[in-house]
Amino acid sequence: MNASFRDILETFENQFPGRDYEIEIICPEFTSVCPKTGQPDFATLTFTYIPDQKCVELKSLKLYLQAFRNEGIFYENVTNRILDDLVAVVAPRRMKLVAAFGPRGGISENVTAIHEATST
Amino acid sequence: MNASFRDILETFENQFPGRDYEIEIICPEFTSVCPKTGQPDFATLTFTYIPDQKCVELKSLKLYLQAFRNEGIFYENVTNRILDDLVAVVAPRRMKLVAAFGPRGGISENVTAIHEATST
Amino acid sequence: MNASFRDILETFENQFPGRDYEIEIICPEFTSVCPKTGQPDFATLTFTYIPDQKCVELKSLKLYLQAFRNEGIFYENVTNRILDDLVAVVAPRRMKLVAAFGPRGGISENVTAIHEATST
Amino acid sequence: MNASFRDILETFENQFPGRDYEIEIICPEFTSVCPKTGQPDFATLTFTYIPDQKCVELKSLKLYLQAFRNEGIFYENVTNRILDDLVAVVAPRRMKLVAAFGPRGGISENVTAIHEATST
Amino acid sequence: MNASFRDILETFENQFPGRDYEIEIICPEFTSVCPKTGQPDFATLTFTYIPDQKCVELKSLKLYLQAFRNEGIFYENVTNRILDDLVAVVAPRRMKLVAAFGPRGGISENVTAIHEATST
Amino acid sequence: MNASFRDILETFENQFPGRDYEIEIICPEFTSVCPKTGQPDFATLTFTYIPDQKCVELKSLKLYLQAFRNEGIFYENVTNRILDDLVAVVAPRRMKLVAAFGPRGGISENVTAIHEATST
Amino acid sequence: MNASFRDILETFENQFPGRDYEIEIICPEFTSVCPKTGQPDFATLTFTYIPDQKCVELKSLKLYLQAFRNEGIFYENVTNRILDDLVAVVAPRRMKLVAAFGPRGGISENVTAIHEATST
Amino acid sequence: MNASFRDILETFENQFPGRDYEIEIICPEFTSVCPKTGQPDFATLTFTYIPDQKCVELKSLKLYLQAFRNEGIFYENVTNRILDDLVAVVAPRRMKLVAAFGPRGGISENVTAIHEATST
Amino acid sequence: MNASFRDILETFENQFPGRDYEIEIICPEFTSVCPKTGQPDFATLTFTYIPDQKCVELKSLKLYLQAFRNEGIFYENVTNRILDDLVAVVAPRRMKLVAAFGPRGGISENVTAIHEATST
Amino acid sequence: MNASFRDILETFENQFPGRDYEIEIICPEFTSVCPKTGQPDFATLTFTYIPDQKCVELKSLKLYLQAFRNEGIFYENVTNRILDDLVAVVAPRRMKLVAAFGPRGGISENVTAIHEATST
Repeated sequence: MNASFRDILETFENQFPGRDYEIEIICPEFTSVCPKTGQPDFATLTFTYIPDQKCVELKSLKLYLQAFRNEGIFYENVTNRILDDLVAVVAPRRMKLVAAFGPRGGISENVTAIHEATST
Repeated sequence: MNASFRDILETFENQFPGRDYEIEIICPEFTSVCPKTGQPDFATLTFTYIPDQKCVELKSLKLYLQAFRNEGIFYENVTNRILDDLVAVVAPRRMKLVAAFGPRGGISENVTAIHEATST
Repeated sequence: MNASFRDILETFENQFPGRDYEIEIICPEFTSVCPKTGQPDFATLTFTYIPDQKCVELKSLKLYLQAFRNEGIFYENVTNRILDDLVAVVAPRRMKLVAAFGPRGGISENVTAIHEATST
Repeated sequence: MNASFRDILETFENQFPGRDYEIEIICPEFTSVCPKTGQPDFATLTFTYIPDQKCVELKSLKLYLQAFRNEGIFYENVTNRILDDLVAVVAPRRMKLVAAFGPRGGISENVTAIHEATST
Repeated sequence: MNASFRDILETFENQFPGRDYEIEIICPEFTSVCPKTGQPDFATLTFTYIPDQKCVELKSLKLYLQAFRNEGIFYENVTNRILDDLVAVVAPRRMKLVAAFGPRGGISENVTAIHEATST
Repeated sequence: MNASFRDILETFENQFPGRDYEIEIICPEFTSVCPKTGQPDFATLTFTYIPDQKCVELKSLKLYLQAFRNEGIFYENVTNRILDDLVAVVAPRRMKLVAAFGPRGGISENVTAIHEATST
Repeated sequence: MNASFRDILETFENQFPGRDYEIEIICPEFTSVCPKTGQPDFATLTFTYIPDQKCVELKSLKLYLQAFRNEGIFYENVTNRILDDLVAVVAPRRMKLVAAFGPRGGISENVTAIHEATST
Repeated sequence: MNASFRDILETFENQFPGRDYEIEIICPEFTSVCPKTGQPDFATLTFTYIPDQKCVELKSLKLYLQAFRNEGIFYENVTNRILDDLVAVVAPRRMKLVAAFGPRGGISENVTAIHEATST
Repeated sequence: MNASFRDILETFENQFPGRDYEIEIICPEFTSVCPKTGQPDFATLTFTYIPDQKCVELKSLKLYLQAFRNEGIFYENVTNRILDDLVAVVAPRRMKLVAAFGPRGGISENVTAIHEATST
Repeated sequence: MNASFRDILETFENQFPGRDYEIEIICPEFTSVCPKTGQPDFATLTFTYIPDQKCVELKSLKLYLQAFRNEGIFYENVTNRILDDLVAVVAPRRMKLVAAFGPRGGISENVTAIHEATST
């Protein structure tokens, strides 16, 4: 079912592929569900990427992230899975994702994953 | 019509070309229009550059940025286009532009583009 | 179906009914759905109340608020409805609810509703 | 031409007219034009009102405020005129508008106007 | 066993009983234990009082608060019980206690209780 | 010479005299000179007033405040004198001036003066 | 020896006795010594007063406060004593003193004392 | 007895061992006891690590840290010991621990220790 | 006339020339005059330098900066000129000057210049 | 007399000499006296060091710093002298001291000095 989420993502053509510029996208309203407790989790996701031929379309990104609303998935897995989906669809030169989850039992967790294109 | 905007920019002579010093210009009142929805976009633009023979004149920069008030243009394009215009007119040794757009649909985007002079 | 949500709320006995003291409960992770657009809404809810014979049990409050996760309801209505539910179950001497919703289209909204017991 | 702007505003029925509750709407992206210099002005508008029979619809409020984008009008006048328009269309029990304008020549100005319904 | 905690508190003579002045004491390091889950709770306690003939000695207050370290007690009860103990020992003209507990399950709670001397 | 400073101030007609609304003007760049030491003083002036028939014109206010640049005058006197000048020229229903001076010898001073019109 | 400290304070004539205006003086560098432990205490003192015929001269206030540098005195006593000294020398219409002491053993204390002239 | 604390820690399998990603865990509610004075110490612990085959399970980490609640141990030792325990159980590629202790006698201390796996 | 300003600067002997240590001096009260408009400019100047044989005396630096109070000079020029003066008088191993000017027409500018001694 | 101050400092054995870990100690309550004006100076001192065989004992550090309370010494000298004393007694692998002094005449100064052990 991961694949079906990925299909929501759309891109548009990067008009300035000759320049390595950076796009940062901040999504403070991400929510999914803890697969163990069934309780909702809340996070701020921050994407930072250098586009190659494509940029992610923001509205499709919003819909893609909303697809996780009732999905049971752990912090570390959701971060890596979302990064993998974006990388597969956007094929950026570099992309970083930071997922900052709110406190649970007095403990907060942030997960940071980075993808570097092999042949830049 | 890009060219006509560029013509608004004026420069003055850098009095200290022997030193690599940095000028940071912060413009929190930039606004253009989304070409898809027709809705206004708002951003803070921050230029950071090392002048070579010329510095950008601030009042002309203000008028240049105001020319985008009713211009329909996407985030990524407006950032790269403004950087290109400044580079063409000011010919700096290095220039960075960060455009930080306000939230839309719960998502914010910042675009950062850098120009390095080839022969410094 | 409002009634069924209300049934989730539990209370415990106020051990100090002889004193008018105040309890403030801050819930930064409330989410419901816009009935017009189908898009999720996010809010921080802050309850402030003076208990009479009962206090609201926090875990039941959490579960009650989670029941709105996939409920389509407008800002003003959800605020008043939640206040009504709490008042019906807890019967406080006074209760205030502030719901602070995140920005949509560049505009944020906060709704504040107050209940005063008639015979205090 | 004031009247035509006012026509953009839409309302919906207040579902809780039996309670004096407060709605705060924050619009950080207001812009108009200085009639003297032709330069754009930028402000954050904050409305706080107690609805009677009607609430202002947020999307129509956004479009109404955008109508001022190329309108030449002074700080004090735009604040009072917008308050008058909202009062005329929404007929609230009480409404306050704070307009906080950005600095010009090293000086910032905030204008605060309040309407109280005569027969509450 | 409440009484034995109270015995830890010491006072010194108020040298300025002719003036109604206010003493605010901030204790960010309070911890007790949840009687239901056995998990530790953490709070910042803020006392604000007008002394009559006695002031509370700070070191004894610290030791008194430390006595709760392994005590199982609910938020509302610990706040009212500590206020009662201070009032019994210090006999202030007025005393307020705010206990601000850290988030649990995404929800924070602050409890505020006030004592007014009957014959001031 | 006080009078000559006052002559710099200009006003425009209040278009909404039927409503008691408030104008706040923040001037963070005020500077005068200490008459005792000859050293420059720096302050942020904040005016808050309810206009009657006239509003102060901002550019003239800027020029008026600049006239104090090389004027030797104490904190308390400059605050009261500026308030008196504004009151004389603008004739507001109420005006408050807060002058917040930067630290000297480790000590900062803020002066607040208020004028209430006698027959409102 | 209290009296000798008081003698350090100097005043100047209030030029605007016809107006009840407020002077706030912030002194973040107060230090005295704990009489019990011999350890230094540190506080920020904030005076707020309405002058009658006299204002306190700032340099003399600085020297007066420095006189406490090696003086052994408790929090509550130093606050009331300093207020008494200022009131005796300046004879204000009203004066408030807030003394905010840094944390000791994880506990901070602020003392607030107010003097109101009996015949204003 | 160190070993018995270590036994509380549990892990789960890292699903993305092919990527060097970072997990940051913030624990603002750590408390232990000073072995010299018997007084409680309070700290915020921040772990930052790159998992290899295992990730630390958050609930077990919470219980592990609670085991120090009545343990007498110095700042520097508790930081290094906790890092050693985590490294022994989780075997990360890299782990950093920052322990930020609250002020004692006007002095605060932060301890930072790093473990790098020898064969990465 | 530049030279005469430079003469105001005084130095004292660096007692620790064997160590490369850094001195940061923050001057939030700099003001000069725009040569084009005649309007005053305001800036915070921050010097950071590694002394060689001499340190700048702070009181003389204050007087030197005050000499610019009525001097007409552009942002970029005043920053470089002040750095040149300090370098000429203090002969530091390295010196950086950041001049952060307040907003004009909605645009702020910061200028950063660095001097590195050629033979360190 | 420098030597006698240094004698106040005590150390304890580093239990983890096999690891290069960092200790940061923040002392916001340092005060000494300006040798020129006789006026007290106030600073926040921040030590950051990697211990070798010894760690500085915090209570002795507090007493050592208090010894400067009535000592006349310049900013640059006190910073270097304190660093030298700590290095002599603690023999760390690396130590940095930042001394941040409060504003005097509108100017603040921070001094940063670093010691690196020659044979690490």
